[in-house]
Amino acid sequence: MELVIGTKAWSTWSLRPWLALKRTGASFKEIEIALRRGDATTADIAAHSPSKLAPALKDGDLVVWDSLAICEYLAETFPDAKLWPTDPALRALGRSAAAEMHSGFQSLRGECPMALNEAPRKLDISEATQKDVRKIVERWNQLLNRSGGPFLLGEWSIADAFYTPVATRFRTYEIHLSDYGDAGAAGAYAERLLETPEFLEWERAAKG
Amino acid sequence: MELVIGTKAWSTWSLRPWLALKRTGASFKEIEIALRRGDATTADIAAHSPSKLAPALKDGDLVVWDSLAICEYLAETFPDAKLWPTDPALRALGRSAAAEMHSGFQSLRGECPMALNEAPRKLDISEATQKDVRKIVERWNQLLNRSGGPFLLGEWSIADAFYTPVATRFRTYEIHLSDYGDAGAAGAYAERLLETPEFLEWERAAKG
Repeated sequence: MELVIGTKAWSTWSLRPWLALKRTGASFKEIEIALRRGDATTADIAAHSPSKLAPALKDGDLVVWDSLAICEYLAETFPDAKLWPTDPALRALGRSAAAEMHSGFQSLRGECPMALNEAPRKLDISEATQKDVRKIVERWNQLLNRSGGPFLLGEWSIADAFYTPVATRFRTYEIHLSDYGDAGAAGAYAERLLETPEFLEWERAAKG
Repeated sequence: MELVIGTKAWSTWSLRPWLALKRTGASFKEIEIALRRGDATTADIAAHSPSKLAPALKDGDLVVWDSLAICEYLAETFPDAKLWPTDPALRALGRSAAAEMHSGFQSLRGECPMALNEAPRKLDISEATQKDVRKIVERWNQLLNRSGGPFLLGEWSIADAFYTPVATRFRTYEIHLSDYGDAGAAGAYAERLLETPEFLEWERAAKG
């Protein structure tokens, strides 16, 4: 398999399936394409993927060109990795949370881009972004309460892959979840996401 | 099961899982909530769903609160309905297309809202929206060529549910796909989406 990804410091979309693929233990080739070069970036990605956007997974003749679809494909291809829990209801909740991140939280995503190569700094965030943060705190608490943790659905899953970039944003822009309704569990969960061996490996490469 | 949906004339997010649920043949209760009433709408949806957005599927104690997650849940719960094809590669392509719509085509979605209760009228669309339309034509052709049609993956699937709202936008705003690189197959597919018995039933209710 080959995973086409964007610049590791910035590409939240790439980080998610990369974490899932790492968890499978499968060996894969990584093709990193430098983002933010306009048409040159588009052309480089278009050589691999019909979407002209990172990420894309290549498995033989097959190209899977969306981050969530890649994760679903990996869950099916490597059932032993348990990228989704075996309980159907818990899986449905996890898919709701992952898909909600996939389509939503636009304000937070626009205002607080992932920047793993930058030092943390306090950012005054807009009201719309504050609303996104409160909603994420609510969502994490809802799922952690239901599963008992330590990850959203109990064991680490695709849902956690989808929220890992958000945890980096909270750290980089010094957004303290206790200011947004967190009694502690959401903040601890965000730290946990940033301490997995897989994320630490990605972060080292992003800074390197 | 109960499906919480928004105003049928406007709610693209609701239409998608509704079409999938109809295809299963299961009986369900429909709870339609009037959109565009600000806090009153939010409060009405919040009574059913943690996302405070339509749609949501309620199955016993379980609430699934995202359109794509609902479709995946239905595909698993009703395997005989074949909401995804059995071929893993084709399923991965279908998930790529559905998830791409779930997160993308923002310009088209913002500029050309679904409006099933309005008469068609010509709209001059922006360059960004034109780019979205060209990309959708490309995507449809790619998948129809691969599967042989008549739907994106051959038989009707969740991928078609995700693109049905787009077909209504093309009709409402008189966007002719032949102006965007279509040799005919994409336009014919758009018409096919609007002729399924399930869509026609939704449309009648939206106009009613």
